[in-house]
Amino acid sequence: MSETVNFIVKDKSFEKFAMMAILGSTGDAMDMKMNFFFTFWGLNLLTKKFRPKVAGMPTPMKGMGAKIFRKRMKKFGIEDPMQLIKDGVENGNLKLYPCQMTMDLMGIKKEELLDWVEEPVGAASFLEMSDGGRIVSL
Amino acid sequence: MSETVNFIVKDKSFEKFAMMAILGSTGDAMDMKMNFFFTFWGLNLLTKKFRPKVAGMPTPMKGMGAKIFRKRMKKFGIEDPMQLIKDGVENGNLKLYPCQMTMDLMGIKKEELLDWVEEPVGAASFLEMSDGGRIVSL
Amino acid sequence: MSETVNFIVKDKSFEKFAMMAILGSTGDAMDMKMNFFFTFWGLNLLTKKFRPKVAGMPTPMKGMGAKIFRKRMKKFGIEDPMQLIKDGVENGNLKLYPCQMTMDLMGIKKEELLDWVEEPVGAASFLEMSDGGRIVSL
Repeated sequence: MSETVNFIVKDKSFEKFAMMAILGSTGDAMDMKMNFFFTFWGLNLLTKKFRPKVAGMPTPMKGMGAKIFRKRMKKFGIEDPMQLIKDGVENGNLKLYPCQMTMDLMGIKKEELLDWVEEPVGAASFLEMSDGGRIVSL
Repeated sequence: MSETVNFIVKDKSFEKFAMMAILGSTGDAMDMKMNFFFTFWGLNLLTKKFRPKVAGMPTPMKGMGAKIFRKRMKKFGIEDPMQLIKDGVENGNLKLYPCQMTMDLMGIKKEELLDWVEEPVGAASFLEMSDGGRIVSL
Repeated sequence: MSETVNFIVKDKSFEKFAMMAILGSTGDAMDMKMNFFFTFWGLNLLTKKFRPKVAGMPTPMKGMGAKIFRKRMKKFGIEDPMQLIKDGVENGNLKLYPCQMTMDLMGIKKEELLDWVEEPVGAASFLEMSDGGRIVSL
């Protein structure tokens, strides 16, 4: 594939997390270059202890829903979605960028983020890095 | 138009359903090639008996909202949004792909899906078919 | 940048409003051409008196959340997000298009919209104007 795919991840649901993990690990397997830009609630997915919940379910089931999905994904060989992404980062195919302005607006500090993500960037850097490539807002 | 447009449909709201139908039927009229990839809750839109509800309304109005929108769309000549899509499929311009992993995760069987959709595909096939084209996550 | 970026804005949350404002004003500063197409609930963002609320918060905090975010954005030099967009329009870089069908479906009249947006267009015009460029559904 000739073009990078540049994803904007803007919410923190389990669904978004799973899509990110599946598209990312598939892209990695196909040796595609993918950038993920985490903004607004999406930034939560990059924090160390965050556990995403299923958005598209009634409130009392949102947490349970995520557990059920994780369990079912295991059956399809996906033990830990975040580990798949980390592998893609280590293979040099995926890059995960925290949005600097979101960190400022929400008061999230760099040490709260996973150690293996890139340095925070602003919207200008995101637009620059995605020039000539595709932009997909998940 | 030279490039395909590849839509990811990830939720089951009436709004998403209407956008899919309007973009799809417009694309068909313009002889554009469009692929729709239905994943997570979006897959519900491809099942035979599913009736989408309006997401952006208070809960007790979600079902009613969809009826009102359908009625108003009729006034603008849109009798049945799904039929418009089916026409586009028959014209060879639109293709609707169920996501294989979602079917597995949610236990949805092929016979529950509309008869005229394509065979289920995985994320790798979606990324391959959208290579060189545009990806839009609705 | 050689290609236009064509955004579909489909909901009315403060988050979507802020993303539109930040991407738009950044694009303007970089002299990129950006079209914004406002459809379904997103059209509310173009009406004169609408004040978006934060979607990703518990219901009683949705209104308050937007105030807090606006206050914090001021600290980062963003006094009025809509003014930034208007500047970009006046600079000739940004264009904001109301969706004609949404206006018809929701009974929104042209005089309810901000004075400085473009004439309403349909899906066909949107697909035409985005031909050869990128499409991002926010």
